[in-house]
Amino acid sequence: MSKKRIAFVGVGRMGANMARHLKDLKYRVTAVYDTYRPCAEELADELGKGTTAYRKLSDVTANADIIFTVVTDDAAMKKIFFGKKDNLLTGATGRLFINCATVSPDMHREVTKAAARRKADVLEACMASSISHARTGNLYLMMGGKESVFKKNRKLLEDLSLNLQYIGAAGKAAEVKALVNMVMNINTAGLAEGLGLAKALGHDLKMVCEVFSQTGANSRVLETDAGDMIDRDHECWFSSSHAAKDSGIAAKIARQKKLNLPVNAATQAQYERMKKEGLGELDKSGIAELTFPGRHANPKKKRVKKR
Amino acid sequence: MSKKRIAFVGVGRMGANMARHLKDLKYRVTAVYDTYRPCAEELADELGKGTTAYRKLSDVTANADIIFTVVTDDAAMKKIFFGKKDNLLTGATGRLFINCATVSPDMHREVTKAAARRKADVLEACMASSISHARTGNLYLMMGGKESVFKKNRKLLEDLSLNLQYIGAAGKAAEVKALVNMVMNINTAGLAEGLGLAKALGHDLKMVCEVFSQTGANSRVLETDAGDMIDRDHECWFSSSHAAKDSGIAAKIARQKKLNLPVNAATQAQYERMKKEGLGELDKSGIAELTFPGRHANPKKKRVKKR
Repeated sequence: MSKKRIAFVGVGRMGANMARHLKDLKYRVTAVYDTYRPCAEELADELGKGTTAYRKLSDVTANADIIFTVVTDDAAMKKIFFGKKDNLLTGATGRLFINCATVSPDMHREVTKAAARRKADVLEACMASSISHARTGNLYLMMGGKESVFKKNRKLLEDLSLNLQYIGAAGKAAEVKALVNMVMNINTAGLAEGLGLAKALGHDLKMVCEVFSQTGANSRVLETDAGDMIDRDHECWFSSSHAAKDSGIAAKIARQKKLNLPVNAATQAQYERMKKEGLGELDKSGIAELTFPGRHANPKKKRVKKR
Repeated sequence: MSKKRIAFVGVGRMGANMARHLKDLKYRVTAVYDTYRPCAEELADELGKGTTAYRKLSDVTANADIIFTVVTDDAAMKKIFFGKKDNLLTGATGRLFINCATVSPDMHREVTKAAARRKADVLEACMASSISHARTGNLYLMMGGKESVFKKNRKLLEDLSLNLQYIGAAGKAAEVKALVNMVMNINTAGLAEGLGLAKALGHDLKMVCEVFSQTGANSRVLETDAGDMIDRDHECWFSSSHAAKDSGIAAKIARQKKLNLPVNAATQAQYERMKKEGLGELDKSGIAELTFPGRHANPKKKRVKKR
């Protein structure tokens, strides 16, 4: 196994599981960091001797050769790479950053440019997967950045993934990721509307799913989300807040390209509504709370007793 | 083979192919009818001795035991069953009507009631299939109406179909059909937006489809429509006008049930827009004409030469 020192910045469930998996494979995970410190400290304890939870980003850079970042959004990326008091680019010469968060293509390009000025490399590794795939090294990874850098680090990336696809220059993988999530979110929102209406009409939802699966209504989200929508099991695998963000990234790119995409706009508005109504931390399947009769957005009317 | 006389009312491509297939199986197809007479006459000629293209609907009823109707929409159903001068219910005692058009659930219920007053039976046979399935007897049929009538005619229906599903009382199959098409149309519109944006960003669309197929963006319409969207091959299998109608049926039912389904609304609006812009007779994949750069709704700007 490579003797290179590996760090993780942002150790929520995805980042932590990737770190655990690399540790299992005997990689040297030397540094972890999270803005929520207890999270980083717990993980460092779990990974044991040789892993430190650093307080400063520049210490992470000083103590690692390859730094995975798995943060929330563009704002978080800005903070870790361009924070005035402390950032990952300080002393970054010779380092490789592998950025896994779903952020805007422009943000990937900006980080790549700034890193190049420090003679550091950057890859984007966009994940179309969930937490369990991270733990078992079965991620679906879409890679952006210099192809030579990708090839040099292929072994490490293969150890994390079941599917590894090189897409193109900086920002290009993030674009495809945004497209994937945009279409997935539309299909999810559409499925929630179909099942919600089926419920309102009194149909057996298992039968309806069976019919959907054999017709033009079939989709991956029918397999992954229909049952959860019916059972109201919205334990979070991919949050509605993330869905709102990703549909929003696609909408922003579409505006830049002067394309009118009304179905994405309607889908984004639904996921934004979930955030507004305090449902943002539900899984994306939770959008069924907006479309099923008798649920959050369509509560049963309370009977008012006459005096 | 049953000696019952079979008729087809509405012999566009679906109806004609169903008639051809039953004729192949040695059923007695005695009567055909279409408001566009040449269509009916041609088919009668093709099917040969024993098949007549009648000018009057009441003559169809007089000369058949089982009458398939495969017409366009609610208005057409109203005309053939309730037309004042001529209709299918005249002399209908003992007849069975099998209605295959995608019309509103309420229309099925209305026809069923009126037929019952004449002691005639009605089944709805909602098809989630296309023309080639009709020709080969591989339709996907969702059946509504009395279960006893369904069971009595099971052999005939099985000869037309690969999948036969009894859904419930009159109108219930039409409801499920509306749900299927609503979700299919949403997925189609969403895919067209995803691929249109991918094109605007300069991606290899074959690669994007490959990524979609392996991720949460996968769907049946990705298999059936993505290639046609990319190649602008919009030969009609399922027209955009029909898509608009079906999404509209779902929208109407949703309003009756007081459900807010904004993604279906946005999809319906797109298909209505296609009709307005003269694209209604394109296949549903033609919705890509609204979302791809440089196409119908996003024409390339003409350069104006300066004098």
